[in-house]
Amino acid sequence: MYEVEVKVPADLGAVRERLERLGATPEDAVVQVDTYYDAPHREFAETDEALRIRSERPEDGDAETRVTYKGPLVDDESKTREEVETAVGDGEKGDAILTNLGFEPAATVRKERERFSLAGYTVTLDSVADVGDYVEVETEVADESELEAAREGAYDVLERLGLDPEEQLRTSYLGLLLES
Amino acid sequence: MYEVEVKVPADLGAVRERLERLGATPEDAVVQVDTYYDAPHREFAETDEALRIRSERPEDGDAETRVTYKGPLVDDESKTREEVETAVGDGEKGDAILTNLGFEPAATVRKERERFSLAGYTVTLDSVADVGDYVEVETEVADESELEAAREGAYDVLERLGLDPEEQLRTSYLGLLLES
Repeated sequence: MYEVEVKVPADLGAVRERLERLGATPEDAVVQVDTYYDAPHREFAETDEALRIRSERPEDGDAETRVTYKGPLVDDESKTREEVETAVGDGEKGDAILTNLGFEPAATVRKERERFSLAGYTVTLDSVADVGDYVEVETEVADESELEAAREGAYDVLERLGLDPEEQLRTSYLGLLLES
Repeated sequence: MYEVEVKVPADLGAVRERLERLGATPEDAVVQVDTYYDAPHREFAETDEALRIRSERPEDGDAETRVTYKGPLVDDESKTREEVETAVGDGEKGDAILTNLGFEPAATVRKERERFSLAGYTVTLDSVADVGDYVEVETEVADESELEAAREGAYDVLERLGLDPEEQLRTSYLGLLLES
């Protein structure tokens, strides 16, 4: 599974209005706290990988935790990488297993995230602590051959939302936080 | 949390009879498939650690998966080590995350396991593929100071089951499998 994801800085209020006018379907609103780990045997900054434990709390529910491995970018034109993710029963124990193995928490990204569906894409409005406000348009494809069409579709969605695909940022929120 | 665990080779039929006579409580019967991983940056055989993904299938249910880190032995007289364990939503994805990070499946241990409760201890009857039949008596204590009393209690339970604590094996099933 490959994820196509295009992210641009945005005025979230203006984008919310456009989404409503376009009839986008509101999916959910959550608070995400992401802890990224350094590896004991590789420089993830050099290998372009990431290991993350994400705690996600919906507006009216219990937090759920997932662990995610992100592989290096496979497509230069968008932020497309292989991702493997699965649920973890207890986030603190997941953290304890990683730290016992020599992985170390490197940074924590906190954000409020609202998700909408539009034309086969997920549109995500992120307000990221100490970083800023961004919109991500993303979808998943099973095969590398489908990447280009999916990326063009994501650019179309951005334009319908009044956003400029040329403002695309390839830096992750983690990278933006570390740069800030 | 510290685990006290004493393991001896056993005739499982004879032990089952003793457990029944002693009024032990049958807990469950499961099939466990354990995959142990080698680390890319440490020799677990030297550091005396282990990283395991366990799939456990009850007689009449769906398999559940957990990931476990086992630290080095903290007590020479019994197999006592720090353990951290949590559930994983999808075992194959857990495996994919580990292998992407450079951990490699080293060996797989398959066993049929029956568990009983007796006098505050868990008595486990294990039939281990390619290894043999064993009984484990175990309990958990919160503090290192309670280890000795817990170990003596485990020896008592073994004797009541007609087993000899002096036949105690400190080698794990993984170790026994690799020696076989």
